[in-house]
Amino acid sequence: MNSTKLEPATALAELQEQKPDRVTIVVLSGDMDRVMAAFIIASGAAAMGMPVTMFFTFWGLNAIRRDGVSGGAKDWLRRMFGWLNKGGADSLPLSRFHFWGLGTRMMKRVMQQHRMPGIPELRETAHELGVRFIACTTTLGLMGISKDTLIDDVDQLAGVTTYLAEAKEGSVNLFI
Amino acid sequence: MNSTKLEPATALAELQEQKPDRVTIVVLSGDMDRVMAAFIIASGAAAMGMPVTMFFTFWGLNAIRRDGVSGGAKDWLRRMFGWLNKGGADSLPLSRFHFWGLGTRMMKRVMQQHRMPGIPELRETAHELGVRFIACTTTLGLMGISKDTLIDDVDQLAGVTTYLAEAKEGSVNLFI
Amino acid sequence: MNSTKLEPATALAELQEQKPDRVTIVVLSGDMDRVMAAFIIASGAAAMGMPVTMFFTFWGLNAIRRDGVSGGAKDWLRRMFGWLNKGGADSLPLSRFHFWGLGTRMMKRVMQQHRMPGIPELRETAHELGVRFIACTTTLGLMGISKDTLIDDVDQLAGVTTYLAEAKEGSVNLFI
Repeated sequence: MNSTKLEPATALAELQEQKPDRVTIVVLSGDMDRVMAAFIIASGAAAMGMPVTMFFTFWGLNAIRRDGVSGGAKDWLRRMFGWLNKGGADSLPLSRFHFWGLGTRMMKRVMQQHRMPGIPELRETAHELGVRFIACTTTLGLMGISKDTLIDDVDQLAGVTTYLAEAKEGSVNLFI
Repeated sequence: MNSTKLEPATALAELQEQKPDRVTIVVLSGDMDRVMAAFIIASGAAAMGMPVTMFFTFWGLNAIRRDGVSGGAKDWLRRMFGWLNKGGADSLPLSRFHFWGLGTRMMKRVMQQHRMPGIPELRETAHELGVRFIACTTTLGLMGISKDTLIDDVDQLAGVTTYLAEAKEGSVNLFI
Repeated sequence: MNSTKLEPATALAELQEQKPDRVTIVVLSGDMDRVMAAFIIASGAAAMGMPVTMFFTFWGLNAIRRDGVSGGAKDWLRRMFGWLNKGGADSLPLSRFHFWGLGTRMMKRVMQQHRMPGIPELRETAHELGVRFIACTTTLGLMGISKDTLIDDVDQLAGVTTYLAEAKEGSVNLFI
């Protein structure tokens, strides 16, 4: 009798293992504010013990590029695009009031005054807390960004199937 | 025997209690169309009996500011930012075709013709249906918005941990 | 005794039936990059056997409009808006570096060089894999788009309640 009484508890435990409080965040945006929010949520969740994976795609890839490195594309079309889209986490524009850099610089000043960390620091904290960084293989090529221009903290290069396999295991799945 | 047979049902009930159909919406965007969608989904879910929480952060804070009130910041940098970012739910721009206000006004005219409620009305309905409004403490300071310029319907000021504690209890977690 | 031992397994199966790995995607954005990501995720999930529904609203409706067809609105205000917002999946702008069409055309060239399918092809693949397309009734009117200018692959016209009924059955619910 005792063993049958335990069964439901086991079922519960099994289920909770199947759906842990996993967090996945697709970062398509390369806007400073959206990327900041993404890293803050990721770090918060990791600090609470939830496994977190961030998938960087399209403009979001700028957030995991090394600073001061050009895209690395060989053909002129993507090189030109890479020049427009020169990235590095420290030079992401605001989604509003960027004003050719002025508004964004203003916001950064305010952040410094509040002793708020910038994107590179937020990213480092997230990674130290165990947040996994995945760069989207499909859009890397499209954006004219070569693998060796990404930061070392990138854990994996992968496609949509890897993302979905993780997303279906969790319930906090954000698209930023 | 009867009691053991009931166990699985109890396990089920417990689990369903653990993961109710909770909805959380992070509103980072301050675009009229995105904020409208957020309030419509929130009200719809609340009307269907789901507990709903909206977390307003960055530009999204504009949607829960009182009209015709300046930010309330004291230093010139944030005051200037606050002037640029003068909010109030009734003056949010469209994410596309804002055209210095022209496109947005056009859309509002169309909405009136269709007898569609504007953002202030949508927000009121949501709150009346029981949707909780949380303002992000971290970005309030960053945007140069003081607490007393927010609408009275704001239920709580909180950070990312509060958001995540609610998000992990639900399965409909949107980032807008 | 044997039958009671089976109960927890039944409970498990029932629960798994209650929450299948359903995917819902609200497509509010009409930006080429965001719509591309939406279709790629939708197709990926459908190929993995997950039921997927896409809800097109606001600018996202442009992604399911027939090419070269005007909005179909009768009053001048919405006709003018429809003219500004002339859609068709093949003419969606990039969310960044659109540059009056130049940047977007550049990206399309790069996509062709990589033999990457465009939006119309991605959309077709998604629908062939069983992804359901729902057009939002509320915003159709607002955007001045008549039903008969939508593509034939649209499965349903519906509102927020239909969306929520599906979203609460799944755990991968994205807002793009």
